[in-house]
Amino acid sequence: MILTVTLNTALDITYRVPGLRPHSSHRVTEVTERPGGKGLNVARVLAALGHEVTVTGFTGGPTGRAVQDGLTAVSGVVDALLPVGGATRRTIAVVDDRTGDTTQLNEPGPTVTPAEWNAFQEAYEDLLPGVSAVALCGSLPPGVPVGAYAGLVRTARTAGVPVLLDTSGEPLRRAVAARPDLIKPNADELAELTGSHEPLRATQDARRRGARSVVASLGAEGLLAVTPEGRWRAAPPARVRGNPTGAGDSAVAGLLSGLAEKLPWPDRLSRAVALSAATVLSPVAGEYDHRAYEELLGRVEVRTEASAA
Amino acid sequence: MILTVTLNTALDITYRVPGLRPHSSHRVTEVTERPGGKGLNVARVLAALGHEVTVTGFTGGPTGRAVQDGLTAVSGVVDALLPVGGATRRTIAVVDDRTGDTTQLNEPGPTVTPAEWNAFQEAYEDLLPGVSAVALCGSLPPGVPVGAYAGLVRTARTAGVPVLLDTSGEPLRRAVAARPDLIKPNADELAELTGSHEPLRATQDARRRGARSVVASLGAEGLLAVTPEGRWRAAPPARVRGNPTGAGDSAVAGLLSGLAEKLPWPDRLSRAVALSAATVLSPVAGEYDHRAYEELLGRVEVRTEASAA
Repeated sequence: MILTVTLNTALDITYRVPGLRPHSSHRVTEVTERPGGKGLNVARVLAALGHEVTVTGFTGGPTGRAVQDGLTAVSGVVDALLPVGGATRRTIAVVDDRTGDTTQLNEPGPTVTPAEWNAFQEAYEDLLPGVSAVALCGSLPPGVPVGAYAGLVRTARTAGVPVLLDTSGEPLRRAVAARPDLIKPNADELAELTGSHEPLRATQDARRRGARSVVASLGAEGLLAVTPEGRWRAAPPARVRGNPTGAGDSAVAGLLSGLAEKLPWPDRLSRAVALSAATVLSPVAGEYDHRAYEELLGRVEVRTEASAA
Repeated sequence: MILTVTLNTALDITYRVPGLRPHSSHRVTEVTERPGGKGLNVARVLAALGHEVTVTGFTGGPTGRAVQDGLTAVSGVVDALLPVGGATRRTIAVVDDRTGDTTQLNEPGPTVTPAEWNAFQEAYEDLLPGVSAVALCGSLPPGVPVGAYAGLVRTARTAGVPVLLDTSGEPLRRAVAARPDLIKPNADELAELTGSHEPLRATQDARRRGARSVVASLGAEGLLAVTPEGRWRAAPPARVRGNPTGAGDSAVAGLLSGLAEKLPWPDRLSRAVALSAATVLSPVAGEYDHRAYEELLGRVEVRTEASAA
């Protein structure tokens, strides 16, 4: 069983409007809702791949109930979210029908009390036995200490469970020092962590800071992996065009799936790139196209990367 | 007891963001929620004035539960909303902290089934005995027939209950022909109904179409009332500056309160203008400032209006 942690779960709401004009009033023509937050997105992809997944983190209020109702519809995902007094945040993606562009509004999330945070840490520790891999995903809600992920990485390591970390900023900086097995920063997150805008240099620096392996997602250029077993670049066979929403979460699901199955790195990277590209190609934002995934999987180019000069 | 009808209730959500830029991502710094839809806003003002108010209309889903939870906190308001299978809509007001301007996103509302609409009409008829005045407020959710307000006006007249109508477009046009006691269009709604942009001419035309009395809200110029008892203009003693959100609903509450108490027209208009101005002056959008209301009430200028040439 794979475990994903989403401390700041969300009810992801998408609005379609015929032309967004600031400081005016709009009738929303279409409303869609689904459970969100990186760890829940990762879990949905893992379940579609056939894995058994448990999701944990926090849920609260009417928005939290809507998230949990949405999760019951996803077969293969077990809900182990913990209740909090505050309400789960909403994220609103406003899609402009004329341009196809998206304007994003993200609520901060509920304020988590020290007692709620303690209860989570205990529940997390209780879940770890029997887990093949754990992913710690996304931003921290107000009230959760900035060193939260560092503590959760240490607990997983003590339990002997490999841990993937996908976050940013100071929570990432602190948690890297706790020696996670794998981090998956994008170019901006990597530059913020290391101060370097040169991906290979920055990736090596991130390893020196404590990450056992680093897989940097470089947009259309694909993935750059620097690991104790070697270095690789992996990219789709041709540039894919579409909606990049959720592509990063699909890449995490691919890497986590390969980590749980102890696949060789080239296979993990192929899976991550194919899932990510199949998500960009999907007509539904954040979902991946199964046929595109199957078709792409054998065609991902994985090249060994030379050492940095 | 006063009854207000809100067929398309809403969970009104306000976001503060530090500068709204289309096609980018925003962290919302402050989230506030409250029950919304014109009839619920009117009820809240009536309750604050000391009236007993019952609210009816539709409620559904997690958003509907949040609306009903919010209503229980308002003393003097009785919840007689009817459940529907769909979810109560959200409205999102995005306030730009830099400019103070608001961008509004309004969901369409749940689709009401014919059975739900029939159940509402029966419940409404059952509520009317003992009601001193009824207000029919706001837009129609999908599925409710465009002639809905016309039917609800007729049912109220049959029950001998005076009826105030505050809506727009085709639902207003149909319902005016059913002879409501009072309509309160703004300048745009009045022009759309009558084809005339000259308020006095348009107001008289609206009476010829069936409304017993018409009170047109003309923004900073105040109210223009054309009634069987006479014609008046009413305006605050000085121009008020602030947030106009809810000012129209407060004016409706003032008029409805005066209608229920059978006050002379000049007193009804004073109350409506003072409440409306005290709402613009309030630091909280959609609430009215009690002290400003008390202070303004005796200072509203009500002038008799000469006949049109």
